[in-house]
Amino acid sequence: MTKYREIQAPLRTIMTPGPVEADPRVLRAMATPILGQFDPAFTHIMNETMEMLRQTFQTENQWAFPVDGTSRSGIEAVLCSLIEPGDKVLVPIFGRFGHLLTEIAERSGAEVHLMECAWGRVFDQQAVIEEVKRVRPKILAIVHGETSTGCMQPLDRIGPACRELGVLTVVDAVASIGGAPVKVDEWQLDAVIGGTQKCISVPSGMAPVTYNERVERILASRKKVERGVAGDGDRSEVARPIRSNYFDLSQLQDYWGPRRLNHHTEATSMLYALREGLRVLLEEGLEERFERHRLHEQALMAGLRGMGLELFNDVPWKLPVVTCVKIPAGVDGESVRSMLLDQFGIEIASSFGPLHGRIWRIGTMGYSCRKENVLFALAALEAVLIRHRAPIVIGRGVQEALDVYEEVRLETASV
Amino acid sequence: MTKYREIQAPLRTIMTPGPVEADPRVLRAMATPILGQFDPAFTHIMNETMEMLRQTFQTENQWAFPVDGTSRSGIEAVLCSLIEPGDKVLVPIFGRFGHLLTEIAERSGAEVHLMECAWGRVFDQQAVIEEVKRVRPKILAIVHGETSTGCMQPLDRIGPACRELGVLTVVDAVASIGGAPVKVDEWQLDAVIGGTQKCISVPSGMAPVTYNERVERILASRKKVERGVAGDGDRSEVARPIRSNYFDLSQLQDYWGPRRLNHHTEATSMLYALREGLRVLLEEGLEERFERHRLHEQALMAGLRGMGLELFNDVPWKLPVVTCVKIPAGVDGESVRSMLLDQFGIEIASSFGPLHGRIWRIGTMGYSCRKENVLFALAALEAVLIRHRAPIVIGRGVQEALDVYEEVRLETASV
Repeated sequence: MTKYREIQAPLRTIMTPGPVEADPRVLRAMATPILGQFDPAFTHIMNETMEMLRQTFQTENQWAFPVDGTSRSGIEAVLCSLIEPGDKVLVPIFGRFGHLLTEIAERSGAEVHLMECAWGRVFDQQAVIEEVKRVRPKILAIVHGETSTGCMQPLDRIGPACRELGVLTVVDAVASIGGAPVKVDEWQLDAVIGGTQKCISVPSGMAPVTYNERVERILASRKKVERGVAGDGDRSEVARPIRSNYFDLSQLQDYWGPRRLNHHTEATSMLYALREGLRVLLEEGLEERFERHRLHEQALMAGLRGMGLELFNDVPWKLPVVTCVKIPAGVDGESVRSMLLDQFGIEIASSFGPLHGRIWRIGTMGYSCRKENVLFALAALEAVLIRHRAPIVIGRGVQEALDVYEEVRLETASV
Repeated sequence: MTKYREIQAPLRTIMTPGPVEADPRVLRAMATPILGQFDPAFTHIMNETMEMLRQTFQTENQWAFPVDGTSRSGIEAVLCSLIEPGDKVLVPIFGRFGHLLTEIAERSGAEVHLMECAWGRVFDQQAVIEEVKRVRPKILAIVHGETSTGCMQPLDRIGPACRELGVLTVVDAVASIGGAPVKVDEWQLDAVIGGTQKCISVPSGMAPVTYNERVERILASRKKVERGVAGDGDRSEVARPIRSNYFDLSQLQDYWGPRRLNHHTEATSMLYALREGLRVLLEEGLEERFERHRLHEQALMAGLRGMGLELFNDVPWKLPVVTCVKIPAGVDGESVRSMLLDQFGIEIASSFGPLHGRIWRIGTMGYSCRKENVLFALAALEAVLIRHRAPIVIGRGVQEALDVYEEVRLETASV
C-alpha cells in the first residue's frame, strides 16, 4: 500500500497572468478516454484543431498546430528550426520574456543583437524598423504581450516593414492570443507562438504555433527524416540540420500533415483540452472575447484606482489582460500575496527583475476574466491592505467596479 | 457560432505498444481544477510526484521528475544536456528506437558510434562492454524495451561495467517502466527516461527522467541562468552551454528543487495525471504489477499459438509487454488491422522499417493489460482472420488463454 492520498487541490480564484483557471468544459474534455494516435477518429480531431487554430490566429496559413510542451517549447521550436549557427537575430527587449527570446536564440547559435527600453515602455515601431534596416537580421524576434510589465508592443507596422526588407518576423503572442487581437496575416507576421494557459484557459502543456510558406521554405532546406521511419526520397543528411529532433518543425509538419509520418506520440488528453478550449473561444467569438477582456480590465482598473492605488501600466500600450499595481510604500508585497492566498484563496502575481517587489500583477485572462472574480479580488485586496495598514480609500474599490458593470448594462439596455 | 461539435472519441480497446488506455482514475484526476505553479498546494504535488518516481525507478537519486513533453522529450533533455559537440556516444541499435537515440545524439553534436544487430535480437552484454572498451565513449545510450521488435536488452552487467570504465549509461526505458523491472540503482544506470503512455497508463505528454550525481556534475559545469530571472552568483555565460533552454536539465532541476526558480509553467493537469498514475501503480505494487503483465502476456501468447499463429519474439529476451505475431503468408496485415478497428473497436499495431508488413504488435500494457482485453482481442482476431481466409486453427485461441487464467486461479486457490 501507499501513503499517498487523493490529489488535494483547493479551489482557487486565480488572478495571475497565467496559468489561470481552466474552463470547466476543458477540464471535462480531458477526462475523455484515449484514442490511438493514428486512429482516424483522432487524426480527425487533429485536423479540426488545426482549423480552429487558424481562426484563432486570424490566418490562412496551412500550418497551425500545437507543439507538445509548455509555451516556451513553441518558441524554441520556431527559433531552433529557423536559426542556423551565425544567423543574425534582432530582439527588442521590453521585459523578461524578451530575455527569454534572446536566451533561446543564443542557445540556437544565433548572433543576437539587442535593443532595450525601460521596463514599462514599448518601442516606437519606427525605431524598431530603423534598427532592422541597420542590423539586417535574418529574424526579428519580438514579444507581443509582455506579462512581466503588462505592456503590449504594436506590430502592425513592424510586420509589413520586415516583409519588405526580407526579414522574418517571429512573435511571442503567448499572453495575448485569445485575449487581444493577434492578426497574423494582416500584420504580416511569419511565425507566431501562442499560449494555452492564459487567455485560452487550457492548462499549460501545449504551445500552438503558426507559420507561413516563407518559414516553410527554410524548413524544407534543412529537412531530414529519422532513419527508423524514412522512406525513399527522404534525406537522412543535410548540411546544417535542425539541432533538435523534438522541436524540428519539418518533422512535426509531416506528422500533422497528410503524410502522418510517425514522430512523437501526440499528447492525447492535452489535445482534447486544446480543442475544447478553442471551441469555447470560437463559440464566444473573437471580437466578443476581446470585448469581454476589455470590460473586466476596465472594472478592475476602476476599482484599483477607487481604492487609491496607483497603476504601473496605465498607458496607451497597456496589455489589456494584465493590470500592474504599484505596491504602496511601506507595504510588504509578498505578505499581501500570502494573505490573499491563505485567507481568500486568491492568487495574484509579483514580478521579475527590476520590478520584483515593486508591483503586483493581476491577470484578467480567459475563464478567470469574469465579474465575480474581479469583484472578489477587489474586496479581498481591500481587506488585506487594511490589515497591512496601507493608506487606501476604504469602501470605494468594489463600488467603482460595480459602476463600470452597471454602466455597461445600461448602455446595452438602451441599444 | 461554430460548427464544431463535442469531441467524438469512440471507446476503443487499445492493444498497441502505446499509447494505451488511460486508467479511469487518471482521467478523473485530470478534471481537477488548476492550481498556480507556485501555489504551496501545487509544489507539494510536485514533491510527492518526485518521491513516487523514485520508487518507480527503484532509485535513491535526488532527481526524478517529468520533462513536460512526450517521451522523446525526456530522451532529448538527457542527451542534449550531457552531450557537448564532439563527444563520443555509443549506440547499440536493435530496432527503431535505437535509431532515435542516434538521431538525437547526432543533432546534439555527438560523434556517434553504432553497433547494430538484426531486428528481433538483442546484444550479448559482453559484446557491448567490449565495444565500450574499444570506443571509449563519454556516453553509452541504449534502449531497454524496444517496442518495434518486442525485445528487451539486459542491462545488469552493462551498467556496472560502464561505471567501472567511467562511461555514462543513458537508458531509454520508455516502454518497460511500470511493466517490467527497471532497476536504476542496482544496474548502475546514470540517467533513465521513462514513458507515461505505455505501462504507466497516463496519456502521452510527460517524460519522467531520473539521473544521479555523476550526471549532475556535468550539468553544473554547463549551467547558466536566464538573464530575466538570474540572481547574484548565477552565471549567464559558460564555455559550452546546453544548446536548449527548454531541455536544460540544470534549469529544470532548479525549478523542481528547493530554489523553485521560474522556468516553464509546469503542465498542471498532466502532472495530476502522472501523480495519479503513479499512485495507482504503487498501490498495486511494483512486483505485483510486473507479475500481472507476465500473466496476461502468457495468456495472450498461449491464445495466439493455439490459433496456429507464429510469434516473432518468442525468445528469452522477449519484452513482456509487447507480443509480435508474424502475419500469415497471403494475408494483408493492414486490412486485418482496419477490420479489427472498424468492426471491433480494437487497435493493434504494425511495425517499422524491415518489419513493416511482416508482423503485428500487440501490447499488454498498464490498464489495457487485463483479462477481458486479452480474451476480446483473441476472439476478434480469430473472427477477422477467418474473414481473411487465413489458415488458422478455429476455436482454440480463446480456450488456450482461458486455460492459462484458470490454471493461475487453481494455483492461487491451492496456496
